Amino acid sequence: MNPKLQWLRNKMNSLDMQGIIISNPVNIFYLTGIDAEGTLLLTRKENIFITDARYIEHVHSILTLYDEIIVYDIRDISKDDYENFFLFCENVGFEEYYVSYANYKEFVRKYRINNLVETEHIIEKQRMIKDDDEIKSIIKACNITDACFSHILKYIKPQMTEKQIAEEIDRYYNEHAEGTSFETIVASGENTSMPHATPTDRKIQEKDIITIDMGCKVNGYCSDMTRTFFVGEVPEAVKPVYDLVLKNQIQTMQDFKDGISTRILSKMVENDFRLNGYDLVHSLGHGVGLEIHEPPFINYKTDIPLKENMVVTNEPGIYIPGKFGVRIEDTVQITKFGCINLTNSEKNYIII
Amino acid sequence: MNPKLQWLRNKMNSLDMQGIIISNPVNIFYLTGIDAEGTLLLTRKENIFITDARYIEHVHSILTLYDEIIVYDIRDISKDDYENFFLFCENVGFEEYYVSYANYKEFVRKYRINNLVETEHIIEKQRMIKDDDEIKSIIKACNITDACFSHILKYIKPQMTEKQIAEEIDRYYNEHAEGTSFETIVASGENTSMPHATPTDRKIQEKDIITIDMGCKVNGYCSDMTRTFFVGEVPEAVKPVYDLVLKNQIQTMQDFKDGISTRILSKMVENDFRLNGYDLVHSLGHGVGLEIHEPPFINYKTDIPLKENMVVTNEPGIYIPGKFGVRIEDTVQITKFGCINLTNSEKNYIII
Repeated sequence: MNPKLQWLRNKMNSLDMQGIIISNPVNIFYLTGIDAEGTLLLTRKENIFITDARYIEHVHSILTLYDEIIVYDIRDISKDDYENFFLFCENVGFEEYYVSYANYKEFVRKYRINNLVETEHIIEKQRMIKDDDEIKSIIKACNITDACFSHILKYIKPQMTEKQIAEEIDRYYNEHAEGTSFETIVASGENTSMPHATPTDRKIQEKDIITIDMGCKVNGYCSDMTRTFFVGEVPEAVKPVYDLVLKNQIQTMQDFKDGISTRILSKMVENDFRLNGYDLVHSLGHGVGLEIHEPPFINYKTDIPLKENMVVTNEPGIYIPGKFGVRIEDTVQITKFGCINLTNSEKNYIII
Repeated sequence: MNPKLQWLRNKMNSLDMQGIIISNPVNIFYLTGIDAEGTLLLTRKENIFITDARYIEHVHSILTLYDEIIVYDIRDISKDDYENFFLFCENVGFEEYYVSYANYKEFVRKYRINNLVETEHIIEKQRMIKDDDEIKSIIKACNITDACFSHILKYIKPQMTEKQIAEEIDRYYNEHAEGTSFETIVASGENTSMPHATPTDRKIQEKDIITIDMGCKVNGYCSDMTRTFFVGEVPEAVKPVYDLVLKNQIQTMQDFKDGISTRILSKMVENDFRLNGYDLVHSLGHGVGLEIHEPPFINYKTDIPLKENMVVTNEPGIYIPGKFGVRIEDTVQITKFGCINLTNSEKNYIII
């Protein structure tokens, strides 16, 4: 059996769970490599993937005998089959944060499970700690992101629209990686004051401030980087804000290490921003992996100790409504005694 | 108040519901035009949108006084506020197909609701019937899709990869619309045998069969069209399959009208395919609107009468594993006595 399924079976044993229903496609991909619609069942004796005719051929092309996964076409499963899957299971787990209330009720009815139990993100928690292969994929995605950013700095010319720049980034990522890991953000001028701006037809002008938030995928794993930079010169009004954001981004990088609390990290930046009359309006960072946003989330609401081989972003930002915003973001690997910055593009004033 | 919120309030009255929690962002956009993360609450007297600092500015730029929606920053809401929102509500609805089991439990705890009731897709059911503005947007998206297909037929040259063709479609849609409505499918040669193929580095060759499934968005509304076509000539082995798919696509178009059952439509195509030794492996069609796949679904499992001003796809397909596949798909508006085909690209043998 593949090591991730074996890990899950051991975990289930320790939790007195005899079966589990995995519905979240990201968790299914993590455990099995299958990137197709369907449901993964771990019953007492078998690993079963239920899919439909559209995906049967594709799924068979991914799996090997070694995976020990039986593939079923959903049209071939009878009412009795469903009731037999978990026949002698006392406790069967399900993903209560992914499964809708309606599906929960459907599970109880269809599988006739005695005790359908919440699994409290067991797979997501394991996914927070990346293994060597996962880190290699993320590093590759980060390297491609640095290269794409270098390329785009040379590519941008006044009169180009935000949309055109975003398209070039997307094109680059389609050519060099598995496409983008989220919708590319290119914001210029006053549009930078919105943390989640979508690219518009606004044209780049002299003395503009530009924020680009970009990332790609390699083997399904994401990168995430933001830079704020300038056309021609750095406006005087922006300098103190940029310096404050950068100072906090570098300070956070120095604080990142195994054991430090996500809440303390976030509070330190928030306090420094407030001392200067600004606010930290979004999370300081988030985990990066198969999903662009995944646990751990680094903000005032969470209090999780970072752990070795978590991969997280470090992205303080300040936004002044109607005027401008500054965000600087890197993807970072946590280590025992510090961290390794995986995106390495310039962070001092960049002027194009 | 905007007419869609007014409709929902009337519907709530008729269902003896004094409040409702809307979490699905597509439903929030449908009802309010807000395209931001957050939760919409309709309480006894107020319409409330709870979001966070990232979106406050953007949301205020969308809403007018006429909308009668109060916007809250989630950080300003206290425990007591949550408990007061639905204080005198007996029954409060929630979207049981969208809300996770964990969130359902959180709602009960946080809002202290006496009776949190399932709403059985009330908004999705209303969304199935499109109003004039919605149909106009879909028609525009369909026209752009026809134009994009004409463009791409001229664009494709032997030795191009599937990925290159998909990128050109995406670029076209980014330029002429709000981008794609789903991940463009370009499959060639034996790759066409997978209904949900993703574009690969396979190069287009002489005598290839090519399937392209494409669509874009206008004002948030989707189009969806598939054509299967040929390089140089139509292989003899493909002709009978193509003819059978096209015959059923045209027959379905003639059967589409107010009142006909989705199950009967699907069964008729399935029967004809089986008579000829093939199978209908995916749905015959699906609703199209703010989502690329939305109710009604046209397959053997559903039994819904089509209604005037539903917009659905008509997409029979036959797939021969390891060899080739043929799918022909249009986006169609149902009328009282028939239907209007909104995508009008050629369906007879297309040879490039």
